[in-house]
Amino acid sequence: MTTVSDEQSRREAQLTETVERSFDTAPDARTREIMQALVRHSHAFVREVRLTEAEWDAAIAFLTAVGHITDDRRQEFVLLSDVLGVSMMTVSVNNEADGDATESTVFGPFFVDDAPLIPLGGDIGGGAPGEPCWVEGRVTDLAGIPVPGARVEVWEADSEGLYDVQYGDDRVAGRAHFFTDGNGDYRFWGLTPTPYPIPDDGPVGALLTAVDRSPMRASHLHFMVTAPGFRTLITHIFVRGDELLASDSVFGVKDSLVMDFDRQVPGAPTPDGRELGASWSRTRFDIVLAPGGDAAA
Amino acid sequence: MTTVSDEQSRREAQLTETVERSFDTAPDARTREIMQALVRHSHAFVREVRLTEAEWDAAIAFLTAVGHITDDRRQEFVLLSDVLGVSMMTVSVNNEADGDATESTVFGPFFVDDAPLIPLGGDIGGGAPGEPCWVEGRVTDLAGIPVPGARVEVWEADSEGLYDVQYGDDRVAGRAHFFTDGNGDYRFWGLTPTPYPIPDDGPVGALLTAVDRSPMRASHLHFMVTAPGFRTLITHIFVRGDELLASDSVFGVKDSLVMDFDRQVPGAPTPDGRELGASWSRTRFDIVLAPGGDAAA
Ligand SMILES: [Fe+2]
Ligand SMILES: [Fe+2]
Repeated sequence: MTTVSDEQSRREAQLTETVERSFDTAPDARTREIMQALVRHSHAFVREVRLTEAEWDAAIAFLTAVGHITDDRRQEFVLLSDVLGVSMMTVSVNNEADGDATESTVFGPFFVDDAPLIPLGGDIGGGAPGEPCWVEGRVTDLAGIPVPGARVEVWEADSEGLYDVQYGDDRVAGRAHFFTDGNGDYRFWGLTPTPYPIPDDGPVGALLTAVDRSPMRASHLHFMVTAPGFRTLITHIFVRGDELLASDSVFGVKDSLVMDFDRQVPGAPTPDGRELGASWSRTRFDIVLAPGGDAAA
Repeated sequence: MTTVSDEQSRREAQLTETVERSFDTAPDARTREIMQALVRHSHAFVREVRLTEAEWDAAIAFLTAVGHITDDRRQEFVLLSDVLGVSMMTVSVNNEADGDATESTVFGPFFVDDAPLIPLGGDIGGGAPGEPCWVEGRVTDLAGIPVPGARVEVWEADSEGLYDVQYGDDRVAGRAHFFTDGNGDYRFWGLTPTPYPIPDDGPVGALLTAVDRSPMRASHLHFMVTAPGFRTLITHIFVRGDELLASDSVFGVKDSLVMDFDRQVPGAPTPDGRELGASWSRTRFDIVLAPGGDAAA
C-alpha cells in the first residue's frame, strides 16, 4: 500500500467521514447501515489501490457496458456479482454453518417454477441428451432423524451444456420435483452432470479473458430442498475428478458438495432394473437440513 | 457487526481467499492488484452488513436501473460515484496534498473544450443571466513565485442554475480561458455563483430521496489551471455563507476553497471602471500550483 503524507491521510479520512455523516439522517436504520458501510469499503478500496482517474473512467465505461447489455433475458450485473464471488458470499452469510447441515451454493439463473412432479425413482430427463445417472440419498435433520415428505427439486444442464429454458422452445427437460418417502429417502434418474460456460460474450466475459480466467462452471446438479421447520437448502452437487472443480467461474464449489459419480459400463445392472443400452453413472447425496422457519414448501 | 461462529467465519474467509487467488494469474499486474482489492473490499462489505438475499436483489435492480437510464447524454454511474464520494476520493488520491498547493475538487460533467480566449479583465458571461462578479488573483508556485502565462479556464452555471451546454442550443456562455500576466495575476468578470441540483429524476435521485439527502450542489465556480512543469489543477471556489456548503451533494467542498464574495450595491465603483446598473460582487482567489509534469497546456 502506497504511503501518503499525514496531511493527505487526514484529508482522505475526513472525506470518508463527511460522506458517511451525510447518511446519518436516513430515515431507515438498515439503509443507513448499508450505505455507510458501502461508503467505508468503497473509499477504502480507492485509497488502497490509489485508483487513477483513467482507471475510474474505465470502471465507469465497464459498468455502462454491463448496464447496456442487461435486459429482461440477460442479467450481466448478476454475472458480475457471480464472477467476483459476491453472489456466493451473499449465499454464505445467509446460510450460516450449522453443525453438519449440508452447505449451500449459488441459485443460478436457470431455476423455473412448476417443474413437474415425478414419482420416486422417476426420470427427470424429459428426453434431454446425456448419460443416465442414478441419484439417491436420504434427507435428515442435524441429529440424523429422517425427514419424510421433504420437497426435493432438481435441475441440470444436458450434455450440450444447456438447460431446457435455453432452447427457447417450450420443452421441459432436466428438471422435476418429488418428495422423500417415509424414511426420508429419495431416488431418481437424472443425467451425469456436464460443464457449461456462463454467458461470456459481454463485458464480464471480456473481464474474464483479460484476467485469464475461464467462464466454465464445474459440472453440477442443482438441488432445492424444502420442509416445514427447516431452512430451505439451495445447493449443487459436483463431480469428483472434474478438472474444473478448482476454477469454477462463480465459486460455487465446496469440498463437502463434491460427490463420487461411479461410471457403469453398458449392461451393468441398474438399481431399479431399468434396461439401458449404454453407459450410466450413479451417485449418493445425503442431505442434512438446518432448522429454520423459512421453508416455502 | 454480527458475530458468527468460527466455522462460518472460516468459510467466509476461505471464499474470499479462493476468489482472490482466481486473479493470481492475471497477466497485467495492475489489473490483478485492482481486482484482488475489489474482491477483498466487496466481500468485507457483504460480510459486515450481512447482506440479505433480498437486499442483494435490490442492489442488482438498482444497478440495472442506473444502467438503463445511462446514455450518451446522461451518465448515472458517474452520478452514483459522485453521491457516494467515490469521485471525490479519486480526485483526492490523484492530487495529493503538497505544501500549500491549492486543493483540487471534482471536475464535473459541464466542462467543454475550446472555450473562448478572452483578454484579462474580460467578461466570460456571454449574455448568461446573473449578477456580475469580479474575480481576481495570482497564480504562484509553492514558494510564492508568480507563474506568468498560466492557462486559466473557468466555467460556471448561470442564475437559472444551468450551464450553457444544458440549453441544447449552441450558445457559449459562462465559460472562457485566459492567461496570467507577467506577475502571475489574472482577473475577469464572471457571475456570482448560484446553486443547482444534480440530475435527480433517476435512480440516484431516488436514492438521495430515500436517505433524505438533497441533490443540490453548493454554489461554485470551476477553475482548471495548467502551466508547464506544474500539476494541472482542477478545482472550484465556493461562496462563504452558502447554506449548502455542509451538504454539497457530491462532497466537492473543501474549507480552503470557500471564498469571501463581497456584495456591492448598485453604483459602487468597479475595479475596471465598468458601469453596472445593478448590484455586483467581487472575490479574490490566489492559486498555488504543485510541481508536476502532467500539464496539458
Ligand atoms: Fe447450473
Ligand atoms: Fe458545476
